[in-house]
Amino acid sequence: MSTPIRIGIIGYGNLGRGVELAIAQNSDMTLVGIFSRRDPASIASPAKVYSVDDIEAFKDRVDVMILCGGSATDLPEQGPAFARHFNTVDSYDTHAKIPEYFERVNAEAVAGGNVSVISTGWDPGLFSLNRLLGQAILPEGADYTFWGKGVSQGHSDAVRRVPGVKAGVQYTVPSESGLARVRAGENPELSTREKHKRDCFIVAEAGADQAAIKDAIVNMPHYFTDYDTTVTFITEEELKHDHAAMPHGGHVFRSGKTGDSTTQLMEFSIKLGSNPEFTASVVVAYARAAYKYAQEGFVGAKTVLDIPFAYLSPKSAAQLRKELL
Amino acid sequence: MSTPIRIGIIGYGNLGRGVELAIAQNSDMTLVGIFSRRDPASIASPAKVYSVDDIEAFKDRVDVMILCGGSATDLPEQGPAFARHFNTVDSYDTHAKIPEYFERVNAEAVAGGNVSVISTGWDPGLFSLNRLLGQAILPEGADYTFWGKGVSQGHSDAVRRVPGVKAGVQYTVPSESGLARVRAGENPELSTREKHKRDCFIVAEAGADQAAIKDAIVNMPHYFTDYDTTVTFITEEELKHDHAAMPHGGHVFRSGKTGDSTTQLMEFSIKLGSNPEFTASVVVAYARAAYKYAQEGFVGAKTVLDIPFAYLSPKSAAQLRKELL
Repeated sequence: MSTPIRIGIIGYGNLGRGVELAIAQNSDMTLVGIFSRRDPASIASPAKVYSVDDIEAFKDRVDVMILCGGSATDLPEQGPAFARHFNTVDSYDTHAKIPEYFERVNAEAVAGGNVSVISTGWDPGLFSLNRLLGQAILPEGADYTFWGKGVSQGHSDAVRRVPGVKAGVQYTVPSESGLARVRAGENPELSTREKHKRDCFIVAEAGADQAAIKDAIVNMPHYFTDYDTTVTFITEEELKHDHAAMPHGGHVFRSGKTGDSTTQLMEFSIKLGSNPEFTASVVVAYARAAYKYAQEGFVGAKTVLDIPFAYLSPKSAAQLRKELL
Repeated sequence: MSTPIRIGIIGYGNLGRGVELAIAQNSDMTLVGIFSRRDPASIASPAKVYSVDDIEAFKDRVDVMILCGGSATDLPEQGPAFARHFNTVDSYDTHAKIPEYFERVNAEAVAGGNVSVISTGWDPGLFSLNRLLGQAILPEGADYTFWGKGVSQGHSDAVRRVPGVKAGVQYTVPSESGLARVRAGENPELSTREKHKRDCFIVAEAGADQAAIKDAIVNMPHYFTDYDTTVTFITEEELKHDHAAMPHGGHVFRSGKTGDSTTQLMEFSIKLGSNPEFTASVVVAYARAAYKYAQEGFVGAKTVLDIPFAYLSPKSAAQLRKELL
């Protein structure tokens, strides 16, 4: 066994904690430290914690920095900035802005002589990979993506803005009948309503009009009008006890035809007990790929689409051929 | 659009016919010809057909040769031989011998200055990729593979050797209860019987003892004793009418834990109307990868584990980032 890959974590929210747990499962990696904008003393981790202001001192002590900030404001700034000084991996997920983000990170990585793997995780990430695979193998066909069951942050924020709502959470749930029709090879045209439903669990303020809250939610334009939505009122204790976990999941299908209209179906599905812990596990596997590319002398940015799966594994190519083919 | 990729097909059985159909679906490819050991006049194809003896004349007229022979006797000889003169792709599937086959093909490809992609298809192939992905992302977990519903050639041959059997076919069928337990995240230890069952459709010879045939099949060591097996007697017409298609499929799972025993499940499934047509579609996508590697000047053998998915697509990396991430 060679020297372990030295990892740094930048940002210690749900994803950062997930990365810390994932590194502990990978014996070829070691966690050098967590870098935070907060007071290091306030971070409850057994790992070493440093101020992000001191990060440049770690240029020769960290092989790959894993960026665990958010895509809205943290990564657009941090991605390019840290790519200048470190090999990096992130889970930037603002789909429409990925091409621009790629160019900015790539320019800094090239200037700094580093490798950056951007937009890992599951969507973008594993789901993108499966869409690409399906389209390449079955050029005549249709893609279907179903998300959930899982919490949608945007929709949860929306229900919490409804007057009379004290707290709440919204689950996106794939339609069983929609899934069944795709799995049957029907190649259906599915409306928004036929793909997902939305389940809301709401804690109302004391004395609030529950009927009015329900009405405001199910008729909310963009967010809920195009869906079948359920609204269930619960107590604050129930919210804490039953809805604190962060499950998620989803399905990517390619439903195609070969030859004289032969039906062919490919499906990739995930069912996650914890969305951030799974995303973190994907990010950590791609940190290994970043390290391997750096060892080979590659410089610049890559996405999951550009990286062979062999780079995700601690095993050698010969070992993988023997065990997995 | 640049010049199309010029493809040759060596061998014209079920797979070769599937490759011919798949090339017609990919507008960046053109079929130069089919190369056969049989009399070209006996091959019923609208494509040009040549004797395989004349193949060296096509050294500068074919970009990638797709080898459609069998793994038992054709490919061990053809794989290295043609890799010496052409870029090649094959679906060599004798799992235990892949490392040795890789070395032999690689040596000839290097000597000839060519690219060879070996052991494409779905198992080995897409299933191998998903096992690798699952193990890399969830290092603490278990793999499960279920095959079917589909015809097993080996088991069909075995039932046809039973005295009194005139013709027959055997389907391997994944156990619904086994699948359900894996999907529930149980991480079960499944016996052979709990993973698959075997369904046989038999045409008996006139006057044969059906009870004796059934008894001989279900008690056949290695092939059937460890499984729940059904035997259904049918007419020759029914066999032709209901069992001529070549459906297949299967499921690869990674069932793992992250953090403090959080359950995480990944599943890749295929449901194929035609096994040879789907395998051919995979092989053709990897022919594009072989072509791209050759354009870049790479020389030697690769497997699916070594190839980024972007190489399977006719689209550019920038276009893929924009559309798929």
